Amino acid sequence: MGGTPRLIGVLGGMGPLATLDFLHKLLQARAALRDQDHVPTVTWNVPQIPDRQQALAGRGEDPLPAMAEGVARLNAAGATCIAIPCNTAHAWHSALSARSRVPILHIVDATVQTLLAGHRGGGHIGLIATRGALDQGLYQSRLEAAGLDYLIPTPQDLDTLFTPGCYAIKANDIATGGRLLARSAQALLDRGATRLVLACTEVPIGLQHAAPQLLAISVDPAMALAQACIRHWEWGDT
Amino acid sequence: MGGTPRLIGVLGGMGPLATLDFLHKLLQARAALRDQDHVPTVTWNVPQIPDRQQALAGRGEDPLPAMAEGVARLNAAGATCIAIPCNTAHAWHSALSARSRVPILHIVDATVQTLLAGHRGGGHIGLIATRGALDQGLYQSRLEAAGLDYLIPTPQDLDTLFTPGCYAIKANDIATGGRLLARSAQALLDRGATRLVLACTEVPIGLQHAAPQLLAISVDPAMALAQACIRHWEWGDT
Repeated sequence: MGGTPRLIGVLGGMGPLATLDFLHKLLQARAALRDQDHVPTVTWNVPQIPDRQQALAGRGEDPLPAMAEGVARLNAAGATCIAIPCNTAHAWHSALSARSRVPILHIVDATVQTLLAGHRGGGHIGLIATRGALDQGLYQSRLEAAGLDYLIPTPQDLDTLFTPGCYAIKANDIATGGRLLARSAQALLDRGATRLVLACTEVPIGLQHAAPQLLAISVDPAMALAQACIRHWEWGDT
Repeated sequence: MGGTPRLIGVLGGMGPLATLDFLHKLLQARAALRDQDHVPTVTWNVPQIPDRQQALAGRGEDPLPAMAEGVARLNAAGATCIAIPCNTAHAWHSALSARSRVPILHIVDATVQTLLAGHRGGGHIGLIATRGALDQGLYQSRLEAAGLDYLIPTPQDLDTLFTPGCYAIKANDIATGGRLLARSAQALLDRGATRLVLACTEVPIGLQHAAPQLLAISVDPAMALAQACIRHWEWGDT
C-alpha cells in the first residue's frame, strides 16, 4: 500500500438489495480474520435514481444526473476508485467516467477477465441480462472482442421470465423472483449453453434461492467486480 | 418530506458484516415495492478502526479519531442524521455527537422505545452485550431509568461463550459463533430471563443461524435503530 490509503467507492442503489449482495461478496472475496483486515468501502446507496431499464427503452427520465451526483459524493468522500454493482448502469459508464476524478472499474472487463481465466476451450456462454443491457450490446461487444461465443434470451423469455423475475427480487419477493429467473437460466441451457453469465445483479440472488446448483456453472459479474476491487485495494490496479 | 432530501449516514465497520446486517434490516423495515421507495443511505464501512472492546478494557489504541473521521465524512457526504450499528461504539456517542453537525441517533434509546412499546408488565430482560458495553453501563442506566428489570451474563459466560462467539462471527465463522452465542443466550434464560436484548450486532447473526426460535423473544437493537432511521427519513425525527 502506498502513502494514500485506498478506499473503494460503491455507487449503489440499483437496486439497494443487489448493492448489499455486492458488499457481501467483497467480504467473502477476502478471507479476513479480523474486522481491520476487510476492504474499506464507502457506499452511496441512494435508490432515488430514475429506472435504468425504462430509460434505455426510451420511456423514462434520464438517470445520469442522479448517478453523477453519487459519483461526485464518492469522490468527495475520498474514494480512490469506484465500482458500480449494476450491469445495466454501465450503459452510462463512459459518461460517468468523464465526470469522475478517480477511475471507475468496468463490470464487463472484470467478467471477461474471469471468463478467460476459467475458459476450458469451447461451449456457449448463456448471457442473462436486462433488455436494456442487451440492446446496448454491453456484454456482446466485449465477449466478441475476447473470442467468446454466447447465446442470449429470446424476447419472449425476457418478457415472461427474466423481467418479472428481476422486478420481483427488487420488491424483496425472493421466492417468486428465484423461480422465474431459474426458468430463464434453464431455457438457455436447453438451447445449448454450457455455462452462464448472470449479468444482472438480481439473478444470483434468485438462483441462490431457487436453483443453487446452477451457480457452479455460472460467472457472477458482481463477484468478478468484487475481485477487481480487491486487486485495486491490494495492488492499486484499476 | 421537507425541502432538503433526508439521507441516513451509517458509521459502519464495527464490524463490517454487522454493518451489512443493519443495512438489510433497513430494507426489511420498510415494505418497499420499488427500488426508489427504499431509504437512501451513505455508509462509511471502513473497518480500520482500533478494537473498541480492547480500548474499553484499557489495553488498546483509542478508536475515537478513526470514528470521528467517519462522522466527518458522512457529514461531508450530506447525511442528515447518523446511525452507528454497533452497541459498544456508543461508549463514544457523546464525543462523536459533539463533533457532528447532524444528530447521531442512540441505539439504546431506540431499543428502550421498542421495549416499552412491547412491554407486557413483568419478566426480566436478559441483556447480552460486550464486557466493554456492560462495564460502561451503556444499557443498564437507560433500562433502569425506564423502570425495566434485567440480568447480565456472568463473567465466566462472557469469557467462555460470548466473547469467543462474537469474534468467531467477526471472522465469518458463523457456525462456531452461532453455537457459542446460543449457549450464552440460553444461560440467561436458565437464570430466569423471559426475553432478550441482543445488544451486540454479531449476536442476531449467530442466533439466526444456530437458534432462530430465540429471535421471537428477542429485541434486536439494530432493528430498533433501523426503525428509528425510518422515522427520521419519513418524519424528520431524531
